[in-house]
Amino acid sequence: MSAPRLARLLSRRPLASRRSAPLPSFVRSTPSLSIRHGSHLPPRSTQFTKPTQQHLDALKAISSSTLSTLDGSATEEELRSFNDDWMNKYHGKGSIVLKPKSTKEVGEIMKYCYENDLAVVPQGGNTGLVGGSNPVHDEIILNLSNLNQIRSFDEVSGVLVADGGVILEAADHFLAEKGFIFPLDLGAKGSCHIGGNVSTNAGGLRLLRYGSLHGSVLGLEVVLPDGRIWNGLSKLRKDNTGFDLKQLFIGSEGTIGIITAISILCPRRPSAMNVAVFSLESYEAVQKVYAEAKGHLGEILSAFEFFDKQSYALVKKHQEENGGERKVFETEGDFYCLIETGGSNSEHDEAKLTGLLEHLMENEMVLDGVLAQDSTQFQSLWSLRELVPESAGKAGSVYKYDVSVPVGKMYGLVEKMRAKLRDGGVLEGDGKAEGPIRAVAGYGHMGDGNLHINIVANKYTDEVEKIIEPYIYEIVAENEGSISAEHGLGVMKAPYIGYSKNETSVELMKQIKQLFDPKGLLNPYKYIV
Amino acid sequence: MSAPRLARLLSRRPLASRRSAPLPSFVRSTPSLSIRHGSHLPPRSTQFTKPTQQHLDALKAISSSTLSTLDGSATEEELRSFNDDWMNKYHGKGSIVLKPKSTKEVGEIMKYCYENDLAVVPQGGNTGLVGGSNPVHDEIILNLSNLNQIRSFDEVSGVLVADGGVILEAADHFLAEKGFIFPLDLGAKGSCHIGGNVSTNAGGLRLLRYGSLHGSVLGLEVVLPDGRIWNGLSKLRKDNTGFDLKQLFIGSEGTIGIITAISILCPRRPSAMNVAVFSLESYEAVQKVYAEAKGHLGEILSAFEFFDKQSYALVKKHQEENGGERKVFETEGDFYCLIETGGSNSEHDEAKLTGLLEHLMENEMVLDGVLAQDSTQFQSLWSLRELVPESAGKAGSVYKYDVSVPVGKMYGLVEKMRAKLRDGGVLEGDGKAEGPIRAVAGYGHMGDGNLHINIVANKYTDEVEKIIEPYIYEIVAENEGSISAEHGLGVMKAPYIGYSKNETSVELMKQIKQLFDPKGLLNPYKYIV
Repeated sequence: MSAPRLARLLSRRPLASRRSAPLPSFVRSTPSLSIRHGSHLPPRSTQFTKPTQQHLDALKAISSSTLSTLDGSATEEELRSFNDDWMNKYHGKGSIVLKPKSTKEVGEIMKYCYENDLAVVPQGGNTGLVGGSNPVHDEIILNLSNLNQIRSFDEVSGVLVADGGVILEAADHFLAEKGFIFPLDLGAKGSCHIGGNVSTNAGGLRLLRYGSLHGSVLGLEVVLPDGRIWNGLSKLRKDNTGFDLKQLFIGSEGTIGIITAISILCPRRPSAMNVAVFSLESYEAVQKVYAEAKGHLGEILSAFEFFDKQSYALVKKHQEENGGERKVFETEGDFYCLIETGGSNSEHDEAKLTGLLEHLMENEMVLDGVLAQDSTQFQSLWSLRELVPESAGKAGSVYKYDVSVPVGKMYGLVEKMRAKLRDGGVLEGDGKAEGPIRAVAGYGHMGDGNLHINIVANKYTDEVEKIIEPYIYEIVAENEGSISAEHGLGVMKAPYIGYSKNETSVELMKQIKQLFDPKGLLNPYKYIV
Repeated sequence: MSAPRLARLLSRRPLASRRSAPLPSFVRSTPSLSIRHGSHLPPRSTQFTKPTQQHLDALKAISSSTLSTLDGSATEEELRSFNDDWMNKYHGKGSIVLKPKSTKEVGEIMKYCYENDLAVVPQGGNTGLVGGSNPVHDEIILNLSNLNQIRSFDEVSGVLVADGGVILEAADHFLAEKGFIFPLDLGAKGSCHIGGNVSTNAGGLRLLRYGSLHGSVLGLEVVLPDGRIWNGLSKLRKDNTGFDLKQLFIGSEGTIGIITAISILCPRRPSAMNVAVFSLESYEAVQKVYAEAKGHLGEILSAFEFFDKQSYALVKKHQEENGGERKVFETEGDFYCLIETGGSNSEHDEAKLTGLLEHLMENEMVLDGVLAQDSTQFQSLWSLRELVPESAGKAGSVYKYDVSVPVGKMYGLVEKMRAKLRDGGVLEGDGKAEGPIRAVAGYGHMGDGNLHINIVANKYTDEVEKIIEPYIYEIVAENEGSISAEHGLGVMKAPYIGYSKNETSVELMKQIKQLFDPKGLLNPYKYIV
């Protein structure tokens, strides 16, 4: 390995050429090309009452903020951001949006809806990828954005109690000022709600370090389908008094209750953070570097992300179009990985990281690498990974899959998917005429065995969807994986749960849904159907 | 602060005088003085069939190992260790003990019991403290000790899959050889089963570092009350496909299913570990040291335990009686705390710990302290804290309470309890004539807000119990605490759940119990009643 590359990785001098303005962490993508999608969507249930002006009048007396096409207080266009998902893939036809300002209001709304057989879809930041937070038909939209207050924070224990509608980034900024960190981070942090994060059991970028929300959430306040308010807002780290009910709501995607507040254990914010990005020859090399990173960095390893050259090409194109930076690596590779450390002692952390970098270079385990020299570069390097989904969205209509399989088998799924699309005659060849599929990009959270496959198409078509699904779920099931690692089932994957869960599981789930929501009014047509 | 104390803490020389043979980590205590206890135990339910010779014959055809007084294959005395709890506080009258050797056998047993209305108590290591794992009346005892195989371990992901009856220490020894650690440690490790740990959501000594089992358990295999086998033995770190059913079984104390296998994420074993114990003037000083430890040690802090002088006196007495070591501290205090670090780099860890120790001494925040110089001392210092419950057991019959409240209010509960017993005229005074209560010791897991109160009596009496209960639950409820932080409800605390959980919670719990176990056959009379 040549000396310059060693120097490049280990030097602490600011590299002016690589410095750039911070990139937006998340921007709502609204591709202009899109068609009405989802031919397999279930028909409207006749069990639910159709919302009318009379219902709206009654709800207006309860909810402090309403929007509706029924009374002309909003146009169909104005309701679009509530009815559509951000990918513009799923389109509801709700005529009533309620934005209650208190848990009590949420309870009264649900009581009224329950008594009147009105179906309801709870909505947080509407940043999901499986059509879980917008209506399928004419469900009433219960948007939680007005429930957005921090309720309390205890600096001794690190326990934060906050409304479900608080935006993730706002919660983290609040905590940063106190020297703490929200134990979850993800690309949509600028829009998503913490209540939505919990209801979908979001995983994100630092699960490797801070673990699952099933471990860090201490309590919840939930409005049940019949309008009862369940106060399970414990601040205790340990509490073994009966079934841990809150766990059922974590990841239940708003089907058995509406999370109006959460209590969560927040760790101290690391005082020292570092990030490095590497180009590598192969997926095998990524796995080897992951093993070395765990060994050298131990308890300070806070993220290990990977992305392929197709992902990186999408990001470069997007950055070019926005006048951002161009050349990061002197030698590019077929794969890239990002390593973040977070610890309490910068000197110790740098020593550990330097030890790793020296080891990787001496053993020629990476092609090239860049270590952030300051906070701007820290953001800039992270954006190489964080911009993948947005860049894909800018390049076309994206079929997004989120699966987990054993780490060693992860990238094989991307290769199988490419072969399947090539065999189906829809994958655009290098330099050939334009086909429906422009790119198949694989990236994700190495430490969690969580792979994201983004299939970028000209537009959403049933032809392409039929090539992808259920094939993708079949190859996940073959590897004993999960068809939804972190994005949830929503309406998109509800029909496919059998690929990941056995009959007994599904039967028990249906019984639990029936127990909590006997009328099936909450977030219908989704999750467990 | 004088130089010698500084030197004493910071020197790395072996301190021969303090070296001693490792102490047993856990010994079953069987106090000779004990009376039939628990006047509030519920009467036998007439809904359950009384086990007969005919049932035994049928079960012998299913279960590969049975013990019974009905066919003379065992005497009442031989069944005592299955019928009694280890404190000799709760005494069942079961006549049949089954020790199945496979999940299939467990399923067949439950199917038979379900069809014949026979009540069953699942039993792991029977090390619990709330009478949860032995019969209340004549329930059939389903002991899992023959289900004791490691099924698989993946060195890349750290995922262990093992039978529920594997002993915790055995699982940890297995993992230690691979460079991994079981993410749970507790005093009863030499006897307790990992299935029992999960079914009671055990917390233990390193929850501060490795978090709750709700975060680390990835999957379960459970035999349902009707004999169906639920295979939820996922090895995936992320899996958002429907309700996270396994969470319901974690901490359900064997009331809705029998855990026959677990899949759990195990971290790498720290390559460097240190432990230090301090004597302190006051509980306020303990809290200050805790804050400093979090700041200086950050991510390597793996345990922060505290115990009071009454706890330490019990341990010293027990060690004296066993010819163990005597003098640890030159200056003793009213309080003690133990700090453990676990990290990947001994040089860095020692630097962090030295920084803390210097800070504590320069600011006179501790009276005295000892830092383990080798692995023997590491064990020996840990035993000062780990031996508290055993030492209390040797000193008499112990009323054990396990609660969680905010850290600042924790020790106030011990003081209130002492005052209550003094007022009730049952607390032995210093140097005075022998009273029913010999000591009230407080200790626990500072980092988790988890306090253990051990009230050592001559013998268990209803008079004393009435002074303690429900007073202790009342003062916990006043502080919005939990009446069971980690030990569970069992039969002991089942009547008191209302002190920690509201009506809606209890109603939902009863519905869940009804859903899974409509006949109420599994571990009856306990938990949710």
